[in-house]
Amino acid sequence: MRPIITLTTDFGTVDGYVGEMKGVISTHAPEAQIIDITHDIPPQDVERARLTMARVWRRFPAGTIHVVVVDPGVGSSRAALAVASDARYLVGPDNGVLSPALLVAGMRAVRLQVPRGASATFHGRDVFAPAAAALARGASVDALGQDAVDPIVHRTPEPIRRPDGSIEGEVIVVDRFGNAVTNLIGRRGGELEIGPTRVALHGTYAEGASGETIGVVGSTGFIEIAVRDGNAATSLGLSRGSRVVLRPTG
Amino acid sequence: MRPIITLTTDFGTVDGYVGEMKGVISTHAPEAQIIDITHDIPPQDVERARLTMARVWRRFPAGTIHVVVVDPGVGSSRAALAVASDARYLVGPDNGVLSPALLVAGMRAVRLQVPRGASATFHGRDVFAPAAAALARGASVDALGQDAVDPIVHRTPEPIRRPDGSIEGEVIVVDRFGNAVTNLIGRRGGELEIGPTRVALHGTYAEGASGETIGVVGSTGFIEIAVRDGNAATSLGLSRGSRVVLRPTG
Amino acid sequence: MRPIITLTTDFGTVDGYVGEMKGVISTHAPEAQIIDITHDIPPQDVERARLTMARVWRRFPAGTIHVVVVDPGVGSSRAALAVASDARYLVGPDNGVLSPALLVAGMRAVRLQVPRGASATFHGRDVFAPAAAALARGASVDALGQDAVDPIVHRTPEPIRRPDGSIEGEVIVVDRFGNAVTNLIGRRGGELEIGPTRVALHGTYAEGASGETIGVVGSTGFIEIAVRDGNAATSLGLSRGSRVVLRPTG
Repeated sequence: MRPIITLTTDFGTVDGYVGEMKGVISTHAPEAQIIDITHDIPPQDVERARLTMARVWRRFPAGTIHVVVVDPGVGSSRAALAVASDARYLVGPDNGVLSPALLVAGMRAVRLQVPRGASATFHGRDVFAPAAAALARGASVDALGQDAVDPIVHRTPEPIRRPDGSIEGEVIVVDRFGNAVTNLIGRRGGELEIGPTRVALHGTYAEGASGETIGVVGSTGFIEIAVRDGNAATSLGLSRGSRVVLRPTG
Repeated sequence: MRPIITLTTDFGTVDGYVGEMKGVISTHAPEAQIIDITHDIPPQDVERARLTMARVWRRFPAGTIHVVVVDPGVGSSRAALAVASDARYLVGPDNGVLSPALLVAGMRAVRLQVPRGASATFHGRDVFAPAAAALARGASVDALGQDAVDPIVHRTPEPIRRPDGSIEGEVIVVDRFGNAVTNLIGRRGGELEIGPTRVALHGTYAEGASGETIGVVGSTGFIEIAVRDGNAATSLGLSRGSRVVLRPTG
Repeated sequence: MRPIITLTTDFGTVDGYVGEMKGVISTHAPEAQIIDITHDIPPQDVERARLTMARVWRRFPAGTIHVVVVDPGVGSSRAALAVASDARYLVGPDNGVLSPALLVAGMRAVRLQVPRGASATFHGRDVFAPAAAALARGASVDALGQDAVDPIVHRTPEPIRRPDGSIEGEVIVVDRFGNAVTNLIGRRGGELEIGPTRVALHGTYAEGASGETIGVVGSTGFIEIAVRDGNAATSLGLSRGSRVVLRPTG
């Protein structure tokens, strides 16, 4: 089986940085199959990269190598990591982007050596792509560096259970459709409070009337706020961190 | 030969939905070669997806599997389809996006079973990607579901022949260059009327003077309106549905 | 080894033009591995495509075929080229986009035949994709056409050494992060003048304080102007061609 290497960056594609990384991988691991996840992470948005990776990394088969380069601290003393977790591999900076894999029991993380002559501004090309290629050729993470000490882990904030039985959550991310994904675990029955707005929970986007604001259980099991044929984030002024209160019923 | 699976969606890439689909395909059909067509269909623009697919689907070799997920009705009673047509396969919602393949004589369309536990909001991951993987592993469409009854077919509107010999058409799509593609079949000789503007037909974009508005026969055989070194749609205020009249000469 | 074909265009992806090219390549060279470099070159920006290709083309292994289609002159008398250079192949219009490969000693360039029936507006599909597929199947460039006469070569402008020892350069490209890449060769020590602004040279982006404007040696060895956690091009009003003066120290 050809090993899979996925790429997740904030580089866009036009500047050629991603092209350079693909060239390095193709040169050092010609058998690898390169799959783009995204290059449209907003510049330096570590949290967004973490959430995208959380959705994606375990959907790929065992042996897959995920390269995640959203790296505002490139060239500083922040560590470069390789992680083996749940039979997959991940490489990227030690700034939280690899959190989903670092939270798994039994994972193993090492600090990558920065090769002599590596650019101080582009570890994607000179550190992470070569490390991914080495893993694709069969290297173990242990061959790539020494134990990483206390890698940085970010967690999605937990909702707060209030004395009156309601649950206070928040918007974690707004997607391309303007759906606002919250940290509230999906359930049947209940009402959402978003500032002065009251919103009922439905089964699917299509259950709402056109233009209606609804809550639905999204594809990762969390409640999302959507407007049928519209954009919930724009209509309700929602962005990352906006408060959403769930009042369960039944 | 490794089977090809192409992807056409309105998901963008940043949210990771496409990444999840690629993971599911890689897991269930590791031999498949995944090729991106686009993830930049404007959100829920079924018509745009239909036109993009019309251009693309038969350019790929026999055996190719096209996955098209522009799906405002996800989770409603709309059917999920698999289609075998002209030696290619297509999967996607029953909302018109698969029309180009459904119009071919001898095609075969089935209604996909929605697996138990599928997300009500993300059939791309839980219905269409697994169906594409099954086809890549050699399943027939008949193995995937029962006959689809009257799948929805959209057609590009036909131009109208008028008593004075002119032909009234319309703009079907505006491309990235601002070229307005019409439903008027290409021909040599003639003049276009776009509101008060008169435009001559030329052979290529490069024949116009810089800034000149011209009509050319585009790469699918239809007349396009272009501005040399400019943007015709912006200059002339053209969008989908704008009227364009052709006065043939000669 | 499967041959690699990379794609660099200004087509975007939504219109399906790139999809058509991928279909043609898959049909005529089913063993080829297609890798996207970018489809987001600004429409008709030949210079930007040249710079992206300059970064990328030699990062890929010997035998790679690069297809570059940014082609305002399509359908005119401009030549269509295939180039063999430094063990790689490139195909694209004769307008400067292939300059990085044309500047290498011992390169070989031929003028591609335009097949009968080729669209006058889409050589990407009808000329360049078939030529790339032929190269992937093992054709030599000589089999694809006759000697190209004086292909067009663009060069990055050279900085000017001034009598007072300072060096006058300019901004070559602004990247997605707002970093302004100049034509000034990287060095340790010195100060940049950008209009009234004075900027010190640092080792990495991360050395600046948040919001500070700095000069760093970028990943191709040229000096870049960056703002830590900000956008240098926006803050300083920089764009392609903006003057930057280097005053070396030490």
